[in-house]
Amino acid sequence: MDFAFDARTEELREKLLTFMDEHVHPAEQTAHEQRAALASPWETPAIVDELKAEARKQGLWNLFFVDEHSLPDAEYGAGLTNLQYAPLAEITGRSPQLAPTALNCAAPDTGNMEVLAQFGSEAQKKQWLEPLLAGEIRSAFAMTEPEVASSDATNIETHIVRDGDDYVINGRKWYISGAMNPLCQIFIVMGKTDPDGPDIRRQQSMILVPRDTPGLEVKRAMQVYGFEDHWHGGHAEVLFHDVRVPAGNLIGEEGGGFGIAQARLGPGRIHHCMRLIGMAERAIELMCRRAVSRTAFGKPLAQQGVVQEWIADARVAVEQLRLLVLKTAWLMDTVGNKGAHTEIQAIKIATPRTVVDILDKAVQLHGAGGVSQDFPLAELWAGARTLQLADGPDEVHQRSLARRELKRYL
Amino acid sequence: MDFAFDARTEELREKLLTFMDEHVHPAEQTAHEQRAALASPWETPAIVDELKAEARKQGLWNLFFVDEHSLPDAEYGAGLTNLQYAPLAEITGRSPQLAPTALNCAAPDTGNMEVLAQFGSEAQKKQWLEPLLAGEIRSAFAMTEPEVASSDATNIETHIVRDGDDYVINGRKWYISGAMNPLCQIFIVMGKTDPDGPDIRRQQSMILVPRDTPGLEVKRAMQVYGFEDHWHGGHAEVLFHDVRVPAGNLIGEEGGGFGIAQARLGPGRIHHCMRLIGMAERAIELMCRRAVSRTAFGKPLAQQGVVQEWIADARVAVEQLRLLVLKTAWLMDTVGNKGAHTEIQAIKIATPRTVVDILDKAVQLHGAGGVSQDFPLAELWAGARTLQLADGPDEVHQRSLARRELKRYL
Amino acid sequence: MDFAFDARTEELREKLLTFMDEHVHPAEQTAHEQRAALASPWETPAIVDELKAEARKQGLWNLFFVDEHSLPDAEYGAGLTNLQYAPLAEITGRSPQLAPTALNCAAPDTGNMEVLAQFGSEAQKKQWLEPLLAGEIRSAFAMTEPEVASSDATNIETHIVRDGDDYVINGRKWYISGAMNPLCQIFIVMGKTDPDGPDIRRQQSMILVPRDTPGLEVKRAMQVYGFEDHWHGGHAEVLFHDVRVPAGNLIGEEGGGFGIAQARLGPGRIHHCMRLIGMAERAIELMCRRAVSRTAFGKPLAQQGVVQEWIADARVAVEQLRLLVLKTAWLMDTVGNKGAHTEIQAIKIATPRTVVDILDKAVQLHGAGGVSQDFPLAELWAGARTLQLADGPDEVHQRSLARRELKRYL
Amino acid sequence: MDFAFDARTEELREKLLTFMDEHVHPAEQTAHEQRAALASPWETPAIVDELKAEARKQGLWNLFFVDEHSLPDAEYGAGLTNLQYAPLAEITGRSPQLAPTALNCAAPDTGNMEVLAQFGSEAQKKQWLEPLLAGEIRSAFAMTEPEVASSDATNIETHIVRDGDDYVINGRKWYISGAMNPLCQIFIVMGKTDPDGPDIRRQQSMILVPRDTPGLEVKRAMQVYGFEDHWHGGHAEVLFHDVRVPAGNLIGEEGGGFGIAQARLGPGRIHHCMRLIGMAERAIELMCRRAVSRTAFGKPLAQQGVVQEWIADARVAVEQLRLLVLKTAWLMDTVGNKGAHTEIQAIKIATPRTVVDILDKAVQLHGAGGVSQDFPLAELWAGARTLQLADGPDEVHQRSLARRELKRYL
Repeated sequence: MDFAFDARTEELREKLLTFMDEHVHPAEQTAHEQRAALASPWETPAIVDELKAEARKQGLWNLFFVDEHSLPDAEYGAGLTNLQYAPLAEITGRSPQLAPTALNCAAPDTGNMEVLAQFGSEAQKKQWLEPLLAGEIRSAFAMTEPEVASSDATNIETHIVRDGDDYVINGRKWYISGAMNPLCQIFIVMGKTDPDGPDIRRQQSMILVPRDTPGLEVKRAMQVYGFEDHWHGGHAEVLFHDVRVPAGNLIGEEGGGFGIAQARLGPGRIHHCMRLIGMAERAIELMCRRAVSRTAFGKPLAQQGVVQEWIADARVAVEQLRLLVLKTAWLMDTVGNKGAHTEIQAIKIATPRTVVDILDKAVQLHGAGGVSQDFPLAELWAGARTLQLADGPDEVHQRSLARRELKRYL
Repeated sequence: MDFAFDARTEELREKLLTFMDEHVHPAEQTAHEQRAALASPWETPAIVDELKAEARKQGLWNLFFVDEHSLPDAEYGAGLTNLQYAPLAEITGRSPQLAPTALNCAAPDTGNMEVLAQFGSEAQKKQWLEPLLAGEIRSAFAMTEPEVASSDATNIETHIVRDGDDYVINGRKWYISGAMNPLCQIFIVMGKTDPDGPDIRRQQSMILVPRDTPGLEVKRAMQVYGFEDHWHGGHAEVLFHDVRVPAGNLIGEEGGGFGIAQARLGPGRIHHCMRLIGMAERAIELMCRRAVSRTAFGKPLAQQGVVQEWIADARVAVEQLRLLVLKTAWLMDTVGNKGAHTEIQAIKIATPRTVVDILDKAVQLHGAGGVSQDFPLAELWAGARTLQLADGPDEVHQRSLARRELKRYL
Repeated sequence: MDFAFDARTEELREKLLTFMDEHVHPAEQTAHEQRAALASPWETPAIVDELKAEARKQGLWNLFFVDEHSLPDAEYGAGLTNLQYAPLAEITGRSPQLAPTALNCAAPDTGNMEVLAQFGSEAQKKQWLEPLLAGEIRSAFAMTEPEVASSDATNIETHIVRDGDDYVINGRKWYISGAMNPLCQIFIVMGKTDPDGPDIRRQQSMILVPRDTPGLEVKRAMQVYGFEDHWHGGHAEVLFHDVRVPAGNLIGEEGGGFGIAQARLGPGRIHHCMRLIGMAERAIELMCRRAVSRTAFGKPLAQQGVVQEWIADARVAVEQLRLLVLKTAWLMDTVGNKGAHTEIQAIKIATPRTVVDILDKAVQLHGAGGVSQDFPLAELWAGARTLQLADGPDEVHQRSLARRELKRYL
Repeated sequence: MDFAFDARTEELREKLLTFMDEHVHPAEQTAHEQRAALASPWETPAIVDELKAEARKQGLWNLFFVDEHSLPDAEYGAGLTNLQYAPLAEITGRSPQLAPTALNCAAPDTGNMEVLAQFGSEAQKKQWLEPLLAGEIRSAFAMTEPEVASSDATNIETHIVRDGDDYVINGRKWYISGAMNPLCQIFIVMGKTDPDGPDIRRQQSMILVPRDTPGLEVKRAMQVYGFEDHWHGGHAEVLFHDVRVPAGNLIGEEGGGFGIAQARLGPGRIHHCMRLIGMAERAIELMCRRAVSRTAFGKPLAQQGVVQEWIADARVAVEQLRLLVLKTAWLMDTVGNKGAHTEIQAIKIATPRTVVDILDKAVQLHGAGGVSQDFPLAELWAGARTLQLADGPDEVHQRSLARRELKRYL
């Protein structure tokens, strides 16, 4: 047992921390100003492209990539294990609106690129994976539906019907992250090709739908607590009205959708959780800075017991969370996603709610400023809170984890 | 001891409930559609004026009014005690974006009208109170400043300086509710006329500043989480650059500002808390409706233990809260604001956080819909959460209440 | 709506508070010393009898009594409504080991006396109710069984079988409060007379079993967190081996047991909850006294933010709880136990857990002393904590209350 | 970074787990029965000695030992690092009344033996360390005083005064663990030799006082909740009335007491925390066994959502806690106690309160059985709860940890 990062991780952490200090954090204010001046809030501020160019130049690019066994994929990515990438993802979480995109490590592109690399045909890779790897386009993953619990892919109502050499897609999706960004050129759509098939885990398939396909309607931006999440391309409601694509757009084989979705989950949760931990670190930093600079009742907030309690509890919670996420990454590296099932679920339960609580305390410490647009806290909170729901509410994961625990005693 | 409402309250409750069912709730969807079609989100949808006309016709108008002793003010209002008005305020909280305005019982107009009635000159009443009573204009209360803890009026930095027959005002205010609404014609501004005076509670004064006064700049809409709160006229940052008004605009006497602000607090908190309880009731209703209509894992949410626990705890909490707020209203009626000091503080501490928690559970139960604009829950949550900060954070009130409790043992 | 106590309540409160100050609180230390010197911890210290004599002399005796409609029973008791008695029960909760017994208002005698008055035959009243009313003997209520959820009387396994002119009882009960006290002369035993009857609520009966009946074995004292609760006569495991009593010992009719148990619940819960609130007040007082007298890090605990938060939250919680319990008493007086069903359940859920939390904070503030026998806090905590389980765990009541709430939307 | 135990740890874990299954768990019932038959509850049941003999034979003996640099001490112990010992301590926590004693790894002997090995003279080692290492006697650590916050050794009131060739000790201590056990032959006593010295951290010394020294009075057993903790030799109040010992009994030098106490803390906290985690695992196991075997409302508790939530949350919390404690052990091994200061404090804050909560849920799930002596849960709870106070209340550690966090921003 050894709690030190290995040499490669240390080297990349240092490099990334320098990049954050020299490029990302100084760009935050500029980025907001540039965005405010854009014709549409969904366009990309110029400074984002500058950050991407710099990151690529420095080799801080596509750091995330794993193959279908959750092992490092050096063909497309930096060849890092989940355990090596996780602490880097945490660092990007300290500036979650800029850093992941700057490094071409932003969801949902990361998972989509891995899906294409693992399951895509050569033609699919050439057409979509290459520009994604180059950061030239963005992508969306269209799975969640309004009338179906997001935790339950087996109930998906979108249909993908074979019709000659094409597939025809009909359905309604929402909270499709990134889809409001005009650079989002390609949708990976989950739907049922065999809705009445005997095995409910073989009814689904995934298919590629280019943005400009007739019948694909990006209808509106869904909100999260009033925010539209412009930085991440929003979360769109997307309608598919008789959308027709060539059969070659299917990813993998018919009936393979559920399996692909499952494979995609593990690394995605590690990334999300580590970025959340980075957000929590940002919140602690902001709390401390506020506490030492603001006075109430004749003494700095930093000397008030309740504030100290918040800060201590936040630190204690973050240290525990981080270790669990890192161990989960290590398990994925060593025994695979399946062997890490309980831990992947555990971090999904523990991380958002803990970080939500830390951000809430940080908001409270900032008073009206905390709920305002003048600090990043309210928006970070809304993002973290939503992860208690996204990809299945906490309660579903608690239930599932408990059933596995109980099984040993039956 | 008697927990039944009196006859007048019962009669008005019935009338108001009918008004809600027949007019307000059916107008909710229309109001949103009308607003979406307006040139500016700060304008008022036509249906709001229709609701106001109807409410006035039915005698559901200016129900809130008390005098400087917190006793019913039948000259300007309906002559109700705080205890009689409280359950009506609760009912309006079930549709907080429409109902309080429809009844001309919305903050901050309510407190502002009481201030004018209690402390205003005849000229001030004629010019500003009358159109406010008639619901023809709106008003703002400009007290909170970005650099000063909102709980501490003695540190206010805005200056009101006598210059000949005028006062000249300089300062920066934010989260000035209602000020984004173009109908908001008059600002009651709190500032220091005697910043170096020996008694820190006599340094402040309040003064009337018409919206169109040169130097008054309504700079931007502050957000609460991502919301701008269009229904309440937003929460503006307002700058005062050498704003000059006649000396006759001062409310009451120089040095009276702190006292007026204190007098304004008690009834305001009762109103806020009762509306929050109405919001909690709305949340419980939405939770129940969702729970009986949505299925997961083969059985309705309504039959799942965790959901039942949320609903039960919400009901138990609301019943306790309501009684405490009603008792506080009764104390204000019988022993005055000062005698009700502990209880006023207690409801300020207890109500927002409890209702925040109930709304959070309701959000969770609604999944992605809960955080979206398709249900009112996220916006109600943001409003309730902000009340843990507005007018002093919870922690300040806990500290103050504890000191009073401890004093008995010193 | 009126939150003031009526004149009779005020008069009795004043009298009782004086009795507490002059007699009960001064007796606490003596009572502990006397008990330590007794041959058996189950015997009664002499000072308890002196307190009883004094209370009786002052008319502070059997204050609790209601009839089968939950209306005041002036034949046997003081003729007080539930609402009049509740604040008196609270006061006794401030010294829960002495005061309820001193006033002959201690559980389970209170409920047992009401059962006898409401359902007992004249012979039963003469033999058992009279000495109970006089405080000469004590009694037990033998319902809870180890293998059956205490919330579910329909599963009781004790059998009461008719055999000629007798009934023969076999079964095992535990946590039978008071039974370790040798003065406990009579057991009201719940069991099944018709275990296969079609209506599961008509299978049970209640029967009187004198302590000295052959086959009745008071086996051992059950603990609650290491405490044996000597003051209340402990909580015994009691075995019934072919216990034979005359048929005339049946209370009411065969099959009436479930109904009697239900009738007994409402007032019992009010009493328990009000005494718990008295215990919470005691805890707040002890917290405050400790906070003003103890210093850490160079300033009194009373000036430390975290301590202030605990005290404030305790005060705010207690004020809400008390009002809900009083309202519940009022409902029982005005619409009966059935009409007050939701509220009775609500106070059962809310009170123990809230008071547990307050006592826990008080323990923490007292450091090692808090968990020790030198302060009453640990023992009060254990008693309050047990009430989250007794008579059905919180979760059962949450479930039931939620189902009633949800029913409105089905 | 590597989350696997090393080979030696794995080997010892396996050996210890087998020992637990074959010897310790089967002895639990016997041990209780033997104790019940003893003349005094403070004597040791015979089976404990049998377990000790067996453990020693198997080489599961004195596994804990570290030197003054927190490095493995192979002279006296098994030569394990903190990281190697920690998972073994966890396993003993699953049967905390027997296993630590069986392995001669029970507090406070562990810390006392380390103190003697690190700071004792050869004579002291010969007289006291050797029989302790052999498990022939027990020892106590007399530091805590009733009138002094246990977190603040600088305020200790016990005096150790040089008088010729002797020291004379006067003072009052309480919660001196182990001292009720007649086998406890030696007390390490902390007191002030230089109460007015300029450096408040050099005023204290530690001195050895044999049990039979005149003037040493073991006055009474302090309780934790209602428990006296017979298995650990209780927690005594101990008075020192003019207790005279030779000067050679001083440990180390005059003024060295504070430093020794600090050195003793780190490993002690690791041990406590790991045993607590073992207790939490026991609680989870008991919860699961109960949940699968008990039915309510027609289905097993294991299928009820609230129960599943408790079990899932317990599992998620324990996984996080364990990693933090292990990392802390690793830090102590690699950078020493000082470098691990924040983490040592973090586990002191996080572990007891988390385990208390898990045990509380386990109690609730067991109903009346949970609070009774028929399950170990109530007693484990009381022990864990007390660790929120022992060696400084949580709040003191939160404050200290927060100040270190804030220092970075000053």
